[in-house]
Amino acid sequence: MSIFVDITDKPLDSAEVLNYVRHPQAGAIVYFGGTTRNTFEGKEVVSLAYEAHPRLAIKTLESIAHEAKAKFQSVHKIAIVHRTGVVPVATESVMIAVSSTHRKEGWLCGEWVLEKVKERAEIWKIEKYADGDSVYKENDVSNVLSRT
Amino acid sequence: MSIFVDITDKPLDSAEVLNYVRHPQAGAIVYFGGTTRNTFEGKEVVSLAYEAHPRLAIKTLESIAHEAKAKFQSVHKIAIVHRTGVVPVATESVMIAVSSTHRKEGWLCGEWVLEKVKERAEIWKIEKYADGDSVYKENDVSNVLSRT
Repeated sequence: MSIFVDITDKPLDSAEVLNYVRHPQAGAIVYFGGTTRNTFEGKEVVSLAYEAHPRLAIKTLESIAHEAKAKFQSVHKIAIVHRTGVVPVATESVMIAVSSTHRKEGWLCGEWVLEKVKERAEIWKIEKYADGDSVYKENDVSNVLSRT
Repeated sequence: MSIFVDITDKPLDSAEVLNYVRHPQAGAIVYFGGTTRNTFEGKEVVSLAYEAHPRLAIKTLESIAHEAKAKFQSVHKIAIVHRTGVVPVATESVMIAVSSTHRKEGWLCGEWVLEKVKERAEIWKIEKYADGDSVYKENDVSNVLSRT
């Protein structure tokens, strides 16, 4: 197996995904960690939580990883993990790691996978602000589903 | 301080650079690890080692990090560490980590820093092949300085 995906309510471990993708034919390991920010559009964020449909989301993450392997031929291994529940400020909600023979393809693949996860995975974000407002969004921040 | 650079003959620690760049205003942590490959242009690599002029290389890494901070305004922190001596296959010789408010600038900054390190840092690579050949190169692999 050359892909690893997971949805978990536990803290994510960067060493785990980086070690998973390590490969003797790879010259590059590219990693992205998405972390909770303390502000969004100038408003103070007091908490950020993620909800997922785990069974569907796992299948979607697997599809994205397989598509990426087919698209980026020098990529050896891919890991995608997403956390659910409350994710504190400065803490990772998503980690993506990719190993590739050459660095250029590693960068391109890492960014491609991240964008696809945000577009397609069945994972939603709930942001609560210090002013009492809260917003329910698709993971891709551009699309607000509802405000409460 | 928002930059950290180091040249060391010890194994590099990804958790150290990732935790260094962690920041409450950052939504993205982008990381690159350059790892030793077991082949180069079809030849089996038996060992890869790096030599540096540590004092000059540290200054160059600092300059690159400061330039990157000025160029990529939403970047909060940057870490660049490079290992010297023999670096085993599938092991990191260089690690770069960047935190940024938005992910796009994190990707761009990480890649920019890596290319500048390869172009400008006073670090050289010695590759030994299974066929007995060995090559002394600038870190940017395109430029072979001598063959022995």
